[in-house]
Amino acid sequence: MIEHRLKETIRDIHDFPKPGIIFKDITPILKDHQLCSDIVNKFADQCKGLELDAVVGIESRGFLFGFLLANQLGLPFIPIRKQGRLPADTFEQHYDLEYGSASIEIHRDAFKPGARLLVHDDLLATGGTVVATSKLIQQMGGEIAAFAFVINLEFLNGTEKIKPFCDKIFSLVTY
Amino acid sequence: MIEHRLKETIRDIHDFPKPGIIFKDITPILKDHQLCSDIVNKFADQCKGLELDAVVGIESRGFLFGFLLANQLGLPFIPIRKQGRLPADTFEQHYDLEYGSASIEIHRDAFKPGARLLVHDDLLATGGTVVATSKLIQQMGGEIAAFAFVINLEFLNGTEKIKPFCDKIFSLVTY
Repeated sequence: MIEHRLKETIRDIHDFPKPGIIFKDITPILKDHQLCSDIVNKFADQCKGLELDAVVGIESRGFLFGFLLANQLGLPFIPIRKQGRLPADTFEQHYDLEYGSASIEIHRDAFKPGARLLVHDDLLATGGTVVATSKLIQQMGGEIAAFAFVINLEFLNGTEKIKPFCDKIFSLVTY
Repeated sequence: MIEHRLKETIRDIHDFPKPGIIFKDITPILKDHQLCSDIVNKFADQCKGLELDAVVGIESRGFLFGFLLANQLGLPFIPIRKQGRLPADTFEQHYDLEYGSASIEIHRDAFKPGARLLVHDDLLATGGTVVATSKLIQQMGGEIAAFAFVINLEFLNGTEKIKPFCDKIFSLVTY
């Protein structure tokens, strides 16, 4: 079972990024190429029949398995980046953080209207970034065919926030 | 020739991130999975005989082909991240930017002394981040077996800056 292996490999870091938070560190996964290969194979299996046009990955950690999956499926990869990083014309979406706000961007020519997209990040927490990404995709006329996360922190209720955009949500390990 | 195809695909964005700069945009490469596959195959070919222990990728764009290459070679992937992003104990290295300075980090348990590492980023410009990465690796007792870049902006002389750390430098396209 991949879930069991992931739980054994993911490392809990206490009090990061601030006191009281237990951070799920995926860097031990990245050291285990067999596990990485199994993760991307599992996602590829779950994507069967979705008739995807591209994989969307959210900066920075979503670039890892997002790009690997896109290449395994033979699909274009579309990066969502933090404000000010994408060089060509972009659409931008603000979203609230616990304190203050942040902003992400997508290139306006990233995909054509009607494109069927898989949205990937390594971890779903409160869902803020993924909701912002979903709004950008909707605004550009794209269709979210599925979400794929390595880790889903279900106690933070991100699933409920993103479900209105697409209820096909793949999570390899939940806490 | 991969160099020719890369030059046809990479997009020049004028005045980004500031007036007078012509930015090399790699996002059109990411849309072309055949070209992505050829890039990683070319790197894998160049790495033959290097007896690598891991691939090091520099945040954020170095996560893309770095992780793809690590998985193709069946090797661990080690992320170099901006300050404050890696959750476990780190070593940190400051480096100068045109205005001000920045800092990158590596996990202290990222590799064992004596490990032979390939260092990857998408683009070599003035070399500041790559030199800082190389110093971190040296400090931890690692050996840089090669550098691999998709793009090398040779007119910025990054090659001269990084050569003291390892003179095996793979660049797929130079300007």
